[in-house]
Amino acid sequence: MGQFIDINCDMGEGFGPYVLGNDEQMLPFITSANVACGFHAGDPLTIYRTVALCAKNHVAVGAHPGYPDRQGFGRRVLACSEDELYTDLLYQIGAMVAFCRSLGITLHHVKPHGALYNLAVRDAEVAHTFCRAARSIHPELPVYVPPGSCLHEEAEIMGLSIALEAFADRAYNPDGTLVDRRQRGAVIHNPAEVAERVLRMVTMGKVRAIDGTDIDLQPDTICVHGDTPGAVAICQAIAEKLVANGVRARTPIFTHEGDAMID
Amino acid sequence: MGQFIDINCDMGEGFGPYVLGNDEQMLPFITSANVACGFHAGDPLTIYRTVALCAKNHVAVGAHPGYPDRQGFGRRVLACSEDELYTDLLYQIGAMVAFCRSLGITLHHVKPHGALYNLAVRDAEVAHTFCRAARSIHPELPVYVPPGSCLHEEAEIMGLSIALEAFADRAYNPDGTLVDRRQRGAVIHNPAEVAERVLRMVTMGKVRAIDGTDIDLQPDTICVHGDTPGAVAICQAIAEKLVANGVRARTPIFTHEGDAMID
Amino acid sequence: MGQFIDINCDMGEGFGPYVLGNDEQMLPFITSANVACGFHAGDPLTIYRTVALCAKNHVAVGAHPGYPDRQGFGRRVLACSEDELYTDLLYQIGAMVAFCRSLGITLHHVKPHGALYNLAVRDAEVAHTFCRAARSIHPELPVYVPPGSCLHEEAEIMGLSIALEAFADRAYNPDGTLVDRRQRGAVIHNPAEVAERVLRMVTMGKVRAIDGTDIDLQPDTICVHGDTPGAVAICQAIAEKLVANGVRARTPIFTHEGDAMID
Amino acid sequence: MGQFIDINCDMGEGFGPYVLGNDEQMLPFITSANVACGFHAGDPLTIYRTVALCAKNHVAVGAHPGYPDRQGFGRRVLACSEDELYTDLLYQIGAMVAFCRSLGITLHHVKPHGALYNLAVRDAEVAHTFCRAARSIHPELPVYVPPGSCLHEEAEIMGLSIALEAFADRAYNPDGTLVDRRQRGAVIHNPAEVAERVLRMVTMGKVRAIDGTDIDLQPDTICVHGDTPGAVAICQAIAEKLVANGVRARTPIFTHEGDAMID
Repeated sequence: MGQFIDINCDMGEGFGPYVLGNDEQMLPFITSANVACGFHAGDPLTIYRTVALCAKNHVAVGAHPGYPDRQGFGRRVLACSEDELYTDLLYQIGAMVAFCRSLGITLHHVKPHGALYNLAVRDAEVAHTFCRAARSIHPELPVYVPPGSCLHEEAEIMGLSIALEAFADRAYNPDGTLVDRRQRGAVIHNPAEVAERVLRMVTMGKVRAIDGTDIDLQPDTICVHGDTPGAVAICQAIAEKLVANGVRARTPIFTHEGDAMID
Repeated sequence: MGQFIDINCDMGEGFGPYVLGNDEQMLPFITSANVACGFHAGDPLTIYRTVALCAKNHVAVGAHPGYPDRQGFGRRVLACSEDELYTDLLYQIGAMVAFCRSLGITLHHVKPHGALYNLAVRDAEVAHTFCRAARSIHPELPVYVPPGSCLHEEAEIMGLSIALEAFADRAYNPDGTLVDRRQRGAVIHNPAEVAERVLRMVTMGKVRAIDGTDIDLQPDTICVHGDTPGAVAICQAIAEKLVANGVRARTPIFTHEGDAMID
Repeated sequence: MGQFIDINCDMGEGFGPYVLGNDEQMLPFITSANVACGFHAGDPLTIYRTVALCAKNHVAVGAHPGYPDRQGFGRRVLACSEDELYTDLLYQIGAMVAFCRSLGITLHHVKPHGALYNLAVRDAEVAHTFCRAARSIHPELPVYVPPGSCLHEEAEIMGLSIALEAFADRAYNPDGTLVDRRQRGAVIHNPAEVAERVLRMVTMGKVRAIDGTDIDLQPDTICVHGDTPGAVAICQAIAEKLVANGVRARTPIFTHEGDAMID
Repeated sequence: MGQFIDINCDMGEGFGPYVLGNDEQMLPFITSANVACGFHAGDPLTIYRTVALCAKNHVAVGAHPGYPDRQGFGRRVLACSEDELYTDLLYQIGAMVAFCRSLGITLHHVKPHGALYNLAVRDAEVAHTFCRAARSIHPELPVYVPPGSCLHEEAEIMGLSIALEAFADRAYNPDGTLVDRRQRGAVIHNPAEVAERVLRMVTMGKVRAIDGTDIDLQPDTICVHGDTPGAVAICQAIAEKLVANGVRARTPIFTHEGDAMID
């Protein structure tokens, strides 16, 4: 909780001839991007262009690996083995490192996508495998995690750098988990309301749950969505609210004790 | 031409449930491997196991990228743009770097596969794109090249490290190019004859072309094939012939002037 | 040349989470659809929904097979063998027949997509393979062909039903071929001008070539595009122009001599 | 239980350059084949060659659809929706119908593969979706089912033709289900023992379960495996045992009341 906050958004989710989201319009409002790695979305050329666009806009690039399932956009669980998941992740994050390096930047963080994200939140084995892959790339590779999740725990155990993530436009249950998308009121669409919630999270460390009670939350990074109607308006509202209240959007810098280098 | 020679072989060309070649049986006879990167063959788990197997057998790991075409095994030209090819290569080599790193080794070299290899030999633009991708991974990343090819020229212009490659079991035309596979006598199957040719290449710098004339050839590395019948017998014959004549099989070490590191 | 004309448009070119074109908006203006078969675009669920949408709108369904290359949208030539192409086509058209049957309709026609279309126009072997695959599905399966092309010739030789195709918004060379897309003036964007050209093609059998001369053209079907800006406005202009001049848009019915049935 | 029995085996499980199983060696011993449809294994050219090989050997061709997952060979459950599964199946079976038709034969039956088979045995919704897809191809398309499974029940409810399947080399639990592959003794490797069990199933309608008790079983078709070591020897032993005891291997013919035609 402080004067700085990171705003992250999924990016590069197109594929071949297909466009998804409003990457260019979102970039002015975010400070870090989760770039699709070519398994659930994205392809080498799309990745390259997305990383280049991020670099040009001074937005940090994270890897956003998912299940190898383009048709399902990584939203369908694939019952793969631990070894299959580990190597699928290594492959995707490794490829992303190469794109970052080719453009002169450093991979900033990693965050699981879709069905893999949901599993890593509640399944310790999947969370462990995810963190093991991250650590193979760099011993302290930062991971974006929901506070209190299996992913959070595993990342701590493994000594990875951690950014606690909160969601700008999602309703929370009293226990700090997200309200199921299929439930009424799960997604908040009003820009002013979303902006107000984000400000309160960042400056007060609190968010109002769906039952009206307050829950504690000290996010390092706020996730916004670029593919919903009104996404750009919401991000603009957040940005204006934050700056008007003295909060600056900044990409988090994770300092390492030793000389470990991601690339 | 000297007392040392590298023996390279394609590896990791299986996919999912499918096995191709005799990787384990070939490893004792080779000193560097060209590992399929998951586009024309291989998959993350296969790559991991192959790289681990190479490391265990003290065989250097190279990346062997190809066209994104599993069904055609990378042997069908895909009319892609320069940007598509560059990013396809970056993706594949980058992934391979991650596998090497996760196993504590360093990517040793890169060599194009199949239809891409054939194009890079005679098409300067494709060769240039290939070398550009290699250089993005590391400014002096070693490339295995047929002497006098477009790939050779471009690698020199770009300042990449170079290993000149000759083929153990392929017949040569008088101009130093390979005899077309569909032509009679293009592939030499007799182990003793292959071994004799390799010895002469390595110690004398010469090979008899298909028309009986001698051509000059000073290979740094000899390519053997693991997926042909009798492959293991041929490799054993080469190994015995070389050791009996004081030639040692060694992975080439490329010294860099500066402190550039592949990983 | 008469009072009837077919208007065809590519449909179902989305994939998984991705949308392309304006299928629903185009349907009122067309009488036959070329539906992507899942190799260059489309997927089983998208195909099903597209065929259902066509059926509901009384638009005839054709198969629109392409190269197995989603990333390149079938616009990159893949150097495959005749057998590979034949079986790739059989697979795609066969799948489309099943979707039509499951929805109670009959496959109406077939038309190659993208790079395969361009090759089938000028390469007799590719055209022959295409027609051979069509004939395997049904001995008189109608094919949409540009007049005078290799595809036209091969379809005639094989005894397939034929619909001659003209393009609504593309400029023609004096020899009846299309002006290369990269050339200035290759695509006509003005709705009124496009509508006027279509009317003249249909009622007069003529179109003005890019050099100002008139060429003869007696189309059975006019191809319109759904993925360009202003596509819907252009189609509306064509529809209004045609109806105002007594030309009715009708799906062509191909009568077979015998009792051959597509499904 | 009678003098006739069908012997079925999975076929066409190769892909591009990859070979799996011993299709040619198995064909003399079987009467129906389950041919991979290109989603978990197989590709258009492999399918064509496999169907042609079956036709030449008078072996009936069935469709063997699976999950869209080549790397996992269809052995990993993919959490797809009912609509996604239905259309994936329609696509695969439809393609297989086209290959059969192009070679002048009729699709004989359908049987789910791998993880989909296992799910269809115990999950009524998946079984229902499978049967719905089969029925879309033909209202009485024969399905191979394990007796008493969800797939069996749904096929009956839908009015599909049914062949009850038993496994030649698998141990049974007392309740008629298969012993888990990971359990000791789950697979029987001794050719004489397997042949004896098959004979007893066919002529007596009984098989000894793993606990020593007898269970009733009246198979119409016996599944043999072609990709295990000793597969050919096992099939030969079965064939000899059956013929020596007056049991003839015959492809089942399913008579339809009406004039419904698969192609």
